[in-house]
Amino acid sequence: MRLEVPRYATLLQSSSLNYSFSGTGVNVVSALTRYGHKGFLLTVLPDNPLGDAAIAYLRRLGIQTDYAARGGRYIGSYFLEHGFGARPSRVTYTDRWGSSFNTAEFDDEWFKAAVAEIDAIHFCGITLAMNDGVRAAMKRLGRAAKAAGKTVIFDCNYRPSLWGDGGYELAKPHYEEMLELADIAFMNERDAIHILGMTTSEQNRADQLRELIPQAAQRYKLNTVAGTHRSINGDNTHSLTGYMYKGGEFHFSNQLTFAVYDRVGAGDAYASGIIHGELQNASPSHTVEFAAAAAMLAHTVAGDTPLATEGEVLEAMGKEIRDISR
Amino acid sequence: MRLEVPRYATLLQSSSLNYSFSGTGVNVVSALTRYGHKGFLLTVLPDNPLGDAAIAYLRRLGIQTDYAARGGRYIGSYFLEHGFGARPSRVTYTDRWGSSFNTAEFDDEWFKAAVAEIDAIHFCGITLAMNDGVRAAMKRLGRAAKAAGKTVIFDCNYRPSLWGDGGYELAKPHYEEMLELADIAFMNERDAIHILGMTTSEQNRADQLRELIPQAAQRYKLNTVAGTHRSINGDNTHSLTGYMYKGGEFHFSNQLTFAVYDRVGAGDAYASGIIHGELQNASPSHTVEFAAAAAMLAHTVAGDTPLATEGEVLEAMGKEIRDISR
Amino acid sequence: MRLEVPRYATLLQSSSLNYSFSGTGVNVVSALTRYGHKGFLLTVLPDNPLGDAAIAYLRRLGIQTDYAARGGRYIGSYFLEHGFGARPSRVTYTDRWGSSFNTAEFDDEWFKAAVAEIDAIHFCGITLAMNDGVRAAMKRLGRAAKAAGKTVIFDCNYRPSLWGDGGYELAKPHYEEMLELADIAFMNERDAIHILGMTTSEQNRADQLRELIPQAAQRYKLNTVAGTHRSINGDNTHSLTGYMYKGGEFHFSNQLTFAVYDRVGAGDAYASGIIHGELQNASPSHTVEFAAAAAMLAHTVAGDTPLATEGEVLEAMGKEIRDISR
Amino acid sequence: MRLEVPRYATLLQSSSLNYSFSGTGVNVVSALTRYGHKGFLLTVLPDNPLGDAAIAYLRRLGIQTDYAARGGRYIGSYFLEHGFGARPSRVTYTDRWGSSFNTAEFDDEWFKAAVAEIDAIHFCGITLAMNDGVRAAMKRLGRAAKAAGKTVIFDCNYRPSLWGDGGYELAKPHYEEMLELADIAFMNERDAIHILGMTTSEQNRADQLRELIPQAAQRYKLNTVAGTHRSINGDNTHSLTGYMYKGGEFHFSNQLTFAVYDRVGAGDAYASGIIHGELQNASPSHTVEFAAAAAMLAHTVAGDTPLATEGEVLEAMGKEIRDISR
Amino acid sequence: MRLEVPRYATLLQSSSLNYSFSGTGVNVVSALTRYGHKGFLLTVLPDNPLGDAAIAYLRRLGIQTDYAARGGRYIGSYFLEHGFGARPSRVTYTDRWGSSFNTAEFDDEWFKAAVAEIDAIHFCGITLAMNDGVRAAMKRLGRAAKAAGKTVIFDCNYRPSLWGDGGYELAKPHYEEMLELADIAFMNERDAIHILGMTTSEQNRADQLRELIPQAAQRYKLNTVAGTHRSINGDNTHSLTGYMYKGGEFHFSNQLTFAVYDRVGAGDAYASGIIHGELQNASPSHTVEFAAAAAMLAHTVAGDTPLATEGEVLEAMGKEIRDISR
Amino acid sequence: MRLEVPRYATLLQSSSLNYSFSGTGVNVVSALTRYGHKGFLLTVLPDNPLGDAAIAYLRRLGIQTDYAARGGRYIGSYFLEHGFGARPSRVTYTDRWGSSFNTAEFDDEWFKAAVAEIDAIHFCGITLAMNDGVRAAMKRLGRAAKAAGKTVIFDCNYRPSLWGDGGYELAKPHYEEMLELADIAFMNERDAIHILGMTTSEQNRADQLRELIPQAAQRYKLNTVAGTHRSINGDNTHSLTGYMYKGGEFHFSNQLTFAVYDRVGAGDAYASGIIHGELQNASPSHTVEFAAAAAMLAHTVAGDTPLATEGEVLEAMGKEIRDISR
Repeated sequence: MRLEVPRYATLLQSSSLNYSFSGTGVNVVSALTRYGHKGFLLTVLPDNPLGDAAIAYLRRLGIQTDYAARGGRYIGSYFLEHGFGARPSRVTYTDRWGSSFNTAEFDDEWFKAAVAEIDAIHFCGITLAMNDGVRAAMKRLGRAAKAAGKTVIFDCNYRPSLWGDGGYELAKPHYEEMLELADIAFMNERDAIHILGMTTSEQNRADQLRELIPQAAQRYKLNTVAGTHRSINGDNTHSLTGYMYKGGEFHFSNQLTFAVYDRVGAGDAYASGIIHGELQNASPSHTVEFAAAAAMLAHTVAGDTPLATEGEVLEAMGKEIRDISR
Repeated sequence: MRLEVPRYATLLQSSSLNYSFSGTGVNVVSALTRYGHKGFLLTVLPDNPLGDAAIAYLRRLGIQTDYAARGGRYIGSYFLEHGFGARPSRVTYTDRWGSSFNTAEFDDEWFKAAVAEIDAIHFCGITLAMNDGVRAAMKRLGRAAKAAGKTVIFDCNYRPSLWGDGGYELAKPHYEEMLELADIAFMNERDAIHILGMTTSEQNRADQLRELIPQAAQRYKLNTVAGTHRSINGDNTHSLTGYMYKGGEFHFSNQLTFAVYDRVGAGDAYASGIIHGELQNASPSHTVEFAAAAAMLAHTVAGDTPLATEGEVLEAMGKEIRDISR
Repeated sequence: MRLEVPRYATLLQSSSLNYSFSGTGVNVVSALTRYGHKGFLLTVLPDNPLGDAAIAYLRRLGIQTDYAARGGRYIGSYFLEHGFGARPSRVTYTDRWGSSFNTAEFDDEWFKAAVAEIDAIHFCGITLAMNDGVRAAMKRLGRAAKAAGKTVIFDCNYRPSLWGDGGYELAKPHYEEMLELADIAFMNERDAIHILGMTTSEQNRADQLRELIPQAAQRYKLNTVAGTHRSINGDNTHSLTGYMYKGGEFHFSNQLTFAVYDRVGAGDAYASGIIHGELQNASPSHTVEFAAAAAMLAHTVAGDTPLATEGEVLEAMGKEIRDISR
Repeated sequence: MRLEVPRYATLLQSSSLNYSFSGTGVNVVSALTRYGHKGFLLTVLPDNPLGDAAIAYLRRLGIQTDYAARGGRYIGSYFLEHGFGARPSRVTYTDRWGSSFNTAEFDDEWFKAAVAEIDAIHFCGITLAMNDGVRAAMKRLGRAAKAAGKTVIFDCNYRPSLWGDGGYELAKPHYEEMLELADIAFMNERDAIHILGMTTSEQNRADQLRELIPQAAQRYKLNTVAGTHRSINGDNTHSLTGYMYKGGEFHFSNQLTFAVYDRVGAGDAYASGIIHGELQNASPSHTVEFAAAAAMLAHTVAGDTPLATEGEVLEAMGKEIRDISR
Repeated sequence: MRLEVPRYATLLQSSSLNYSFSGTGVNVVSALTRYGHKGFLLTVLPDNPLGDAAIAYLRRLGIQTDYAARGGRYIGSYFLEHGFGARPSRVTYTDRWGSSFNTAEFDDEWFKAAVAEIDAIHFCGITLAMNDGVRAAMKRLGRAAKAAGKTVIFDCNYRPSLWGDGGYELAKPHYEEMLELADIAFMNERDAIHILGMTTSEQNRADQLRELIPQAAQRYKLNTVAGTHRSINGDNTHSLTGYMYKGGEFHFSNQLTFAVYDRVGAGDAYASGIIHGELQNASPSHTVEFAAAAAMLAHTVAGDTPLATEGEVLEAMGKEIRDISR
Repeated sequence: MRLEVPRYATLLQSSSLNYSFSGTGVNVVSALTRYGHKGFLLTVLPDNPLGDAAIAYLRRLGIQTDYAARGGRYIGSYFLEHGFGARPSRVTYTDRWGSSFNTAEFDDEWFKAAVAEIDAIHFCGITLAMNDGVRAAMKRLGRAAKAAGKTVIFDCNYRPSLWGDGGYELAKPHYEEMLELADIAFMNERDAIHILGMTTSEQNRADQLRELIPQAAQRYKLNTVAGTHRSINGDNTHSLTGYMYKGGEFHFSNQLTFAVYDRVGAGDAYASGIIHGELQNASPSHTVEFAAAAAMLAHTVAGDTPLATEGEVLEAMGKEIRDISR
């Protein structure tokens, strides 16, 4: 649950919040739904008015909620204060250790039914930080999907504050286990260095990427590895280049530079563009441009969750900025 | 932290919330501040933007925050959906077990400094439900205040959902310990029966009250016991009668009937009216009318926290409804 | 599409509107979904951002949109200004003659697939006013459902302004055709007199009802006929009594008196309560009380669409008004 | 300028205000415009963005602004906090002594042009409290209108806080001078006693009215004297009876009882109903019912300014409360 | 009627809209009113609450509504979703074929009275797309104005979606007929090529303009032809250059580069600046700079309708950006 | 009291305002409070709901209100319309001559008590424009603080519109008297030239500054003189360089370029950064960078009042723009 202070006030100044329900899973599934796929969210929500609101919200995004179980007591949530220019946005987490999701018992029947209905399954590294029960369930589900011949996708997202003192060391084996199950991974050179402990003598991010990603692909037998490089410019625009490593080759998108309305969730938009391309067997060069354009559009929409349709992303891949569409 | 869906929507319908920081302690201290007292809140708030917002909010209410410590990770909070007519209001709690307050270490020096600066101290029964650490600290502080000759006030507020399976049995010894420290207690016949295990052969609430409150006052050596009886009328108005038992005698307010805007916190307004009267050595009959009028006014104000000044309460004790004050 | 001026302003005073997507079909299906049924809406929505918003809104209400086709150019809509006390609410329609729904070609395959998936189907008399194409499609669908042995429900709702000069005379044969297909009908004595041309010598609404409804049930071979009698009281409360005629017997609910927040859509809540009872083979006396309580609760919620769960309706059937549910 | 805290917050709680431009003159002229008359406002507004906003607001209400001069530095304004039930509304004035209106030089040419274009002119007693310049200009304008044979209307509105220590004594000669110019006056028995110094041995308001109003009509040669008696009921409804004394006879409206949304400006709606009846030579009994219904409707609309059309007032004169007008 | 989703949400995300009443005619007349002219709008609005709201809105903008007739059933409207950066704004039209304006009978007496009161009359090409009745009325009015010696202004605005399959071919004779009546026309090289079927061998917009506009001016005997060239820059600013062809000579404004808040209606602001200059016989070089500055300012204001006064436009013609005006 | 039209509407367009309580004193004290100092505001506020709201607002900002006296009738206020790009912001003052502050009698006992409790006192030149009483009191307080050995700070802020025809000539002696009492002054070369009548042959602002500030420091025996040079760039960013002259040497900050959300109050943020550095005996070069970063951050926050903590300012002194802080 995202509890957002209306723009550009702080919690101290304001007295109202906008709320929505998001997260990597929600964002990726919702985006794929907008591209014409049918998407399910496996989650656990409390059986109370907050859970009802979350279910309604997911359905509104087009997500199937058949595998959203009900139980436990509450939803992990965070407060978001939008920054402006030199003032960064701030995220304040509330406790998520005792949330419905983190205290759930994950049932094998449930997993089996879900796996039967899908082509591909997406996991997020942030979930690995939760607790042993969640981690075990996640791997069990990953193995079940793998066994059933479904495409397994893993995003190496990492939030330092969730791993406490153990840090990367604690996280590493879990990330590796998921990578071994994965066909498609989202990862950059920093993940390779910090989480996976890879080393490089290159100084520059681009060179590190070119050295380490192929190594990681080989080590974990990954079909596809993708991600973005982003920089923030002096005039408050961002620049983003997408990359995709597949079949022993790197594909890069054009560098896109654009104004930013809501930065949260743009990485998930990129991921969903890559997944869409892969599910459709599109050419890597088209896929990486599509994903970069999807990420760019996600920066222009309020909320974490990408809303662009396939047509809108294709249109944004064109060069000229359109004025009004009427 | 109260997260309130704007009137009269539900969490499922809305996408925005109003937030404020309240609770029995906040409400009682704030109301007393509006009557001209200087009031402190002893609490623990996280050292993050939410804690900053809470401090600012308390200060806005006129509360001194010198004894509001900073630490821990979050604030216990609840969602409030306002009912309308036949549809009741709904409160959904988030987890409070790991809140800054519930995980704090309460320092004796802190307590000593606070006790030195005050005339009276107010405790709320809801706090007793938290955990052993909080309970122990609460009693330690109560004993310190008692030893220093300060007036100890205890409100027998009880929330069943917070005591789990143990229920009244678990709660009883803690409530009794606090009552033994108390000079002034807020309690009704149901508290006497359910929490304290008293018995009565009377059927009717008013008769039960007249039988049990004097017994409780004697058993726990309470100087003053007070509370209200409330009923909800068919036309959405509420009726309320205040009582106060002191010096072996009952004093009752007139029954007040009034329209209700926000019901939460009205009991705290009543309590603060009684405390104000007692601190000023007002006559019990005046005090009980003042407190009832304060409770009535608290129903007319958005939010938990009473805002009426002493003058406004005195004015409301007059009979005629005024139109516009200009 | 409902375009509502925020309370209690007029179009002339305000500069903002709240929008939602509703109608008898939406309301009945959504309410049944909240009682645990799976509900579909057969409709046609434009393939533009308004249509996307409508789909998302329906899904949020829990409605399955598999049979919501896309095409045509716009959505019939109306402006709602909420009245207050002596000032009535005002509805201003925009043109609906050229809406996506009214210009659609209704495909038999589509109907066949839908009918196969359902137990019961609900039609609304307002739809009969649209045009010949819509009327023909509606009857075709009704006959298909009947032929497949599904329960057919027809609500005699009638809006004079939609029938123009032809009025009741024009409408009568269409209403009769639908009634002949129906198992369950919603109808009161006024519908019997005005639309169906029945006559009575009784003066009083209650007596007219007792005379005419059994005649109508017999004439059109209706299993169940239900409806409500409503009156508006001087203190802005409404009173409502539900009735249900089944198996040759009338069943009446208690008269309920309650405060009103949003009156639009309460009749649909009543209808959904009756349908729910019938689908579950509940006793008529329970069903009529359930439906009346559902109607009462629908008056307490913003928007046309009932939101109460089965549990909340059952709770509201209890007598005492609850204060806060926590 | 009315600066209103959104319902039902106080200045201390809120951080936003709604603003509008109103006053007895605005309200009366706007209401008459809605009845089909052409109405002008003689006023002075600063030549700055606030003045521009006021002009636009008046035009939006249908008022002609040809005689709204521009000059001076600011607009007299007040803050309004809406009360609820037992909590009265509060009005806090800002300084109006140096406002554009109060510091204006009122030009005879301007008055002459305005008088030439009108049938009737309305003055408000509140304006008499301003200062000697305003009082002199007001009388000059009244005499000009009288001399030109136009109907002069005077409302004995009186705000004690604006007259300071001098009070009624200071005010009396000015009110008398205006009454001597007037054809139609708005006045009740309290005005007669307090402002005009009349005496009565009756105890009861109704009897005092019956005794004093005919005396006042005779003393000041008033063609018509009108006003209302109002009471506030326990369930938050108000009751109102209109009266009109004309041709030696009293006419009373039915007593109307109704729910109240915004009480400010309802007296002006009553006055405009009377003026409309008089300008149309309607029968006094019809006029007084029309005016009372207009006042009732004005209580149901946000803001000071009545918005009902003649048709809506006539409709409200019918007995039954309508539900939805569609 | 413009129904605008609040910034920068989409119809799918939001649940509220802001509404206003605009269009080329409204924008041009309102802007001229702010420059000190008296402006009328010839239109037809329904005689219902929406029409009332529109009249009030036009009056608020300073527009005279004496020639705004009432009748028919509704107002053509559109939904506007504001884009952000790479995401374009979207306009979704509702049906306008049956609007009050498009179904009106335009009375010659009405036209005659209107023409008598004015110096100049402005027509918009978008109106030509409506239907034969509207087109005929428009030409009739144009001829009447011409015959009476009034300045006729025609804006070659063209919306492809309104002309259906017929497109430019269908439109051409109507545009030509209006151009033959016109003294002043707004047109660019694309209009000349696409609507009027002119040809050029130049590649570059600026060169095409320089070749075609003089030809068009000669062919249709236009006194003045004006318009803008606009480009959108990478950092979300826009650049705009105004041109005006008069007396055989081109006049260009400086190129202005500026941030954009609401792009809709800026072309109308430019047009009103040209018209103002022409009505005042200002020098073309001053007029074109004034018009460009007016267009720039219109981009900084919410809503379609320019609000700048003549003074504010003159100030904006100065070079330096001012900080705060106090 | 700041009455702000919500972004980016004008008073003519909008119907709502946000209000807050600010001013140079509020801003400087609040900012220092956020850096860990204890800050008092010496002011006079009316004893009415507006004054209560102001007190609550100041307390919310962390300001001690022990020396905020109550009395008089109202608060000086201004309306703020936010500009956008080429459209400047507009400030419209209401009358402040009769405000509580300007009509107060300033008591020596009050001053004495306040001076005893502080280390440093800040005066603002704008206050000098009020009236003789205020000026005399201000100097009396300055002398008392000086006599007690406290640091006296004077900001040469000057608003031409408040001095009327007298202008700089009238103001000069008062500014000089305050400068003679001051230890720290905020001043730039324009103040030196216009208010203090200094002359220079340099053309360029930077050179004028380098010539005149040392002269002023010497003439008035100022320990520290500080200020900023600001420019507005074409792309709506601002650039700012801070300077500080101390111990015979100039210290300049890096030039900072940043996007601007709310420009009002940024100068006060700079001043508070300098004061904080001086109170802590920080090095001038660190202090001037800190102050410039504080000013930059103040541009990113809604409202006049800086909200950044010391930690946030230090963080902003780092070079790279952070994205999200989580």
